[in-house]
Amino acid sequence: MTEISELPDAAKDFLLPYLPSRDTILAAPNRPHITLTYACSLDSMISLAPGVRTTLSGPETKSMTHYLRLKHDAILVGVGTAIADDPSLNCRYPGVSRDTQPRPFILDPSARWNVADSKVRRLASEREGKSPSVIHSDALFSEEQLDAMTSEGESDVPNAERVFVRGGHSTDSSVTVQPRHIDWLDLLRVLKRRGVNSMMIEGGATIINDLLQHPDLVDSVIITIAPTWLGQGGVTISPSPQVKNGERVNAANLHQTSWRQFGSDAVLCGRLTR
Amino acid sequence: MTEISELPDAAKDFLLPYLPSRDTILAAPNRPHITLTYACSLDSMISLAPGVRTTLSGPETKSMTHYLRLKHDAILVGVGTAIADDPSLNCRYPGVSRDTQPRPFILDPSARWNVADSKVRRLASEREGKSPSVIHSDALFSEEQLDAMTSEGESDVPNAERVFVRGGHSTDSSVTVQPRHIDWLDLLRVLKRRGVNSMMIEGGATIINDLLQHPDLVDSVIITIAPTWLGQGGVTISPSPQVKNGERVNAANLHQTSWRQFGSDAVLCGRLTR
Ligand SMILES: NC(=O)c1ccc[n+]([C@@H]2O[C@H](COP(=O)([O-])OP(=O)(O)OC[C@H]3O[C@@H](n4cnc5c(N)ncnc54)[C@H](OP(=O)(O)O)[C@@H]3O)[C@@H](O)[C@H]2O)c1
Ligand SMILES: NC(=O)c1ccc[n+]([C@@H]2O[C@H](COP(=O)([O-])OP(=O)(O)OC[C@H]3O[C@@H](n4cnc5c(N)ncnc54)[C@H](OP(=O)(O)O)[C@@H]3O)[C@@H](O)[C@H]2O)c1
Repeated sequence: MTEISELPDAAKDFLLPYLPSRDTILAAPNRPHITLTYACSLDSMISLAPGVRTTLSGPETKSMTHYLRLKHDAILVGVGTAIADDPSLNCRYPGVSRDTQPRPFILDPSARWNVADSKVRRLASEREGKSPSVIHSDALFSEEQLDAMTSEGESDVPNAERVFVRGGHSTDSSVTVQPRHIDWLDLLRVLKRRGVNSMMIEGGATIINDLLQHPDLVDSVIITIAPTWLGQGGVTISPSPQVKNGERVNAANLHQTSWRQFGSDAVLCGRLTR
Repeated sequence: MTEISELPDAAKDFLLPYLPSRDTILAAPNRPHITLTYACSLDSMISLAPGVRTTLSGPETKSMTHYLRLKHDAILVGVGTAIADDPSLNCRYPGVSRDTQPRPFILDPSARWNVADSKVRRLASEREGKSPSVIHSDALFSEEQLDAMTSEGESDVPNAERVFVRGGHSTDSSVTVQPRHIDWLDLLRVLKRRGVNSMMIEGGATIINDLLQHPDLVDSVIITIAPTWLGQGGVTISPSPQVKNGERVNAANLHQTSWRQFGSDAVLCGRLTR
């Protein structure tokens, strides 16, 4: 495993304007501060193929990711990533304590991921991370199922928690959605009420591609770019195409951008343009 | 049209190790120094759709491209780019003279591009650039056609030249190729014999994706990355996938990388790993 080391002050100063702060938390009082973050290749891929764990970050950007985790209350990934990578989702930055660990959230609407056997739950039992919360769509489960999975507020899995969020609803009333679909704003409101003031969303591709087109819900974007091309057929970050007046236009844009070299990689920080 | 302005010294110093020099030119005596360069979005696209001219570079990186053109004897693009963009391919950097303009080369094996009506030929007639050379595969033309297109060493188009290079041949004897195919080393040798000591290859996607997997022919790679996502369906830079021992591996890699912010874009310089 790569050694995680303290970032130089200049790197911390570079990141600071994009980190959650009192101001950014107060500015969006009904949801956490959201930082969208991922590591990709020059051809915008985050993995060689679905299910193939792919190292992209060098030691400097890997350390940066753990520094970012220290600065957020929570981390969220999708069930695709949980199944493909069995990720740790903990913080290994120097000086982290169990209290300053981020809480891991896994967005798994139909409970298809086996949380009981996961690395993140094992790390929690070893006190190397907080216990994970798995988010399900309430529209997919019967009363009996809900009772079986939670008893007196406790989860059926030790060192893990299940959170049922309203499914099949969209704050945009012009669209109809599947019962498995959870509206981002609904979800973020639930998390905020549970005390999550800041959250990093780390992947995977489906979730990032979706959120890149929700500038109202994302406060900062922090991307690591590694100087390699994975090649056609990998798991790609690229939002769905946008058309305006019959012509294709850019699908998403960043402003207030800052770039900095970290080892042989670059880190780009910015804010999504509304 | 964007104003092209002088680069600050720090930007020139940043580029210097990747520019053609006496040393790099002597190191590969039978071909020009080759710099591969392109501007892309965060999702590695160079255009919103085939044939749609897409602005990616900001004023700082646009100026950099013209500085790079000043530092090379020649520029090459493929016929796909020539048809889609009708590019200028000249240098508009402050102080450029007709002598220090790069010579434009268009790789158009079957002569399907209308050079006579092109902007690059018009600019040459206005002395705003050197006259273009269009490269054809000799395997696609009869003696009479060759005679009609060139007479006594002159081209059929004023202010443009036709260069016929051996087609249907590969230096890799294990592959069979189409008559329209020109081997890169054959082409580069011809250009070197014509006095081209350094050449920027600026696109498009087909040519860049191919050359990213020819580290032996490319001396430097210089990429501009703009902080925008064009969205699925654009023209993408991503080489063909590579498999080793039955597993997917990275398709191409850079080493000796340097990154620098230019305006809101980044520029990445590096060398392809063999
Ligand atoms: N390099 C990096 O930084 C990085 C980081 C993370 C992941 N990855 C890679 O990313 C890949 C996984 O990406 P992925 O796209 O397959 O999966 P993903 O984005 O991790 O998860 C997608 C799943 O999350 C659920 N989901 C997403 N939005 C939802 C919503 N609004 N409501 C309810 N459920 C929602 C859906 O589950 P259902 O299908 O059950 O409906 C969806 O299929 C892996 O290859 C992994 O290695 C790379
Ligand atoms: N953002 C940027 O930096 C940038 C720069 C340049 C271009 N672009 C974009 O790139 C797109 C065009 O890319 P493209 O892939 O369509 O075209 P392209 O790469 O410019 O040209 C490809 C064509 O060149 C010829 N060719 C390539 N390799 C050859 C070889 N070894 N031997 C003989 N002929 C060869 C072939 O012509 P035949 O088909 O006739 O065989 C091939 O189809 C446009 O959308 C343009 O806007 C963007």
